[in-house]
Amino acid sequence: MKKFIVTIAREHGSGGRIIGKKLAENIGIAFYDRELISMTAKETGLSEAFINEIEDQKPSSLLYSLYMGTYVPNVYDEAFVAQSNLIRSIADKESCVIVGRCADYILREYENCCHFFIHAPVEARAKRIVEEYGEKVKDPVAAIKKWDKKRSNYYNFITQTKWGRAQNYNMTIDSSIGIDQSAGMIEDYLRHSGMLD
Amino acid sequence: MKKFIVTIAREHGSGGRIIGKKLAENIGIAFYDRELISMTAKETGLSEAFINEIEDQKPSSLLYSLYMGTYVPNVYDEAFVAQSNLIRSIADKESCVIVGRCADYILREYENCCHFFIHAPVEARAKRIVEEYGEKVKDPVAAIKKWDKKRSNYYNFITQTKWGRAQNYNMTIDSSIGIDQSAGMIEDYLRHSGMLD
Repeated sequence: MKKFIVTIAREHGSGGRIIGKKLAENIGIAFYDRELISMTAKETGLSEAFINEIEDQKPSSLLYSLYMGTYVPNVYDEAFVAQSNLIRSIADKESCVIVGRCADYILREYENCCHFFIHAPVEARAKRIVEEYGEKVKDPVAAIKKWDKKRSNYYNFITQTKWGRAQNYNMTIDSSIGIDQSAGMIEDYLRHSGMLD
Repeated sequence: MKKFIVTIAREHGSGGRIIGKKLAENIGIAFYDRELISMTAKETGLSEAFINEIEDQKPSSLLYSLYMGTYVPNVYDEAFVAQSNLIRSIADKESCVIVGRCADYILREYENCCHFFIHAPVEARAKRIVEEYGEKVKDPVAAIKKWDKKRSNYYNFITQTKWGRAQNYNMTIDSSIGIDQSAGMIEDYLRHSGMLD
């Protein structure tokens, strides 16, 4: 079996991370999600908490500083570049599933790469972050919407395309059909595309 | 088996119409695509050629006339309304697959409805419209891009959301995996969602 990479982008609370983990286990390849954070932290000397927050940065101030000609590379951008290099070196090395971190964009020119996006209705996601992830937020629906806005702003700024735009992915799935079912459908897609035997 | 509706939106040349037809045949339910055009033509007394062109209207002039307060309902809008009513009456009556015509939006509040979007890389679509559909165009890639722009303008204007936005659909598929495979994956999704036994 030739080396291949699967990237999974996901809405918060959609179960995308768990789907990616199940898929990696089922087909027996490596899985990278939070591992990327600790690896980037080691690489840059920055804290894991800081790296974790990269994706929540508001790009508007960066755009403004670019426009005004006052832009100088800052520590957020440096951490993003370090993380991107790390993702590429992992993809060069072994077959794997990578969740989040704009990996679909970072690896857009890689061959033998399939990109997926997992979403679900906002109410289902609000329920999941409270009941399954144990997140303590006053208004889970409002928290989800705020998170969506941050994540899409970040992705759209980095990639200059739209987060969740079907054409950026091989397949997108509403995970309401279930975690195992969604992981199974991604596996089927990989088989149909010839990546898996 | 309870009544259910499948809508399929598709990029031109992606094979979405054929995928919808195969799916309908495989699961034994009705199929509506160009049938909607002739039925709307009969209903309104307008020609099929005219109805066929509704989706290619530039919404910009309509927006402008709305903005200027000079808007009066025109024959395009009346044909759209007649077609929307027809789609709803079909959905009330029987299980079916409906291709195109903003059916996902028109039936957005219907229960037991699953929405799919089929796309493919522009080069593959350009090849398909020439080799399989027999379309005679000088520059197939340019023709595809022009068509995408028209179709997305129309959909975005009618629905006030984005054409091809993953969250508008239960699943989106890059049909490069093949026509039968794509139809099979939609059938699997319907089974996982409990619509098909």
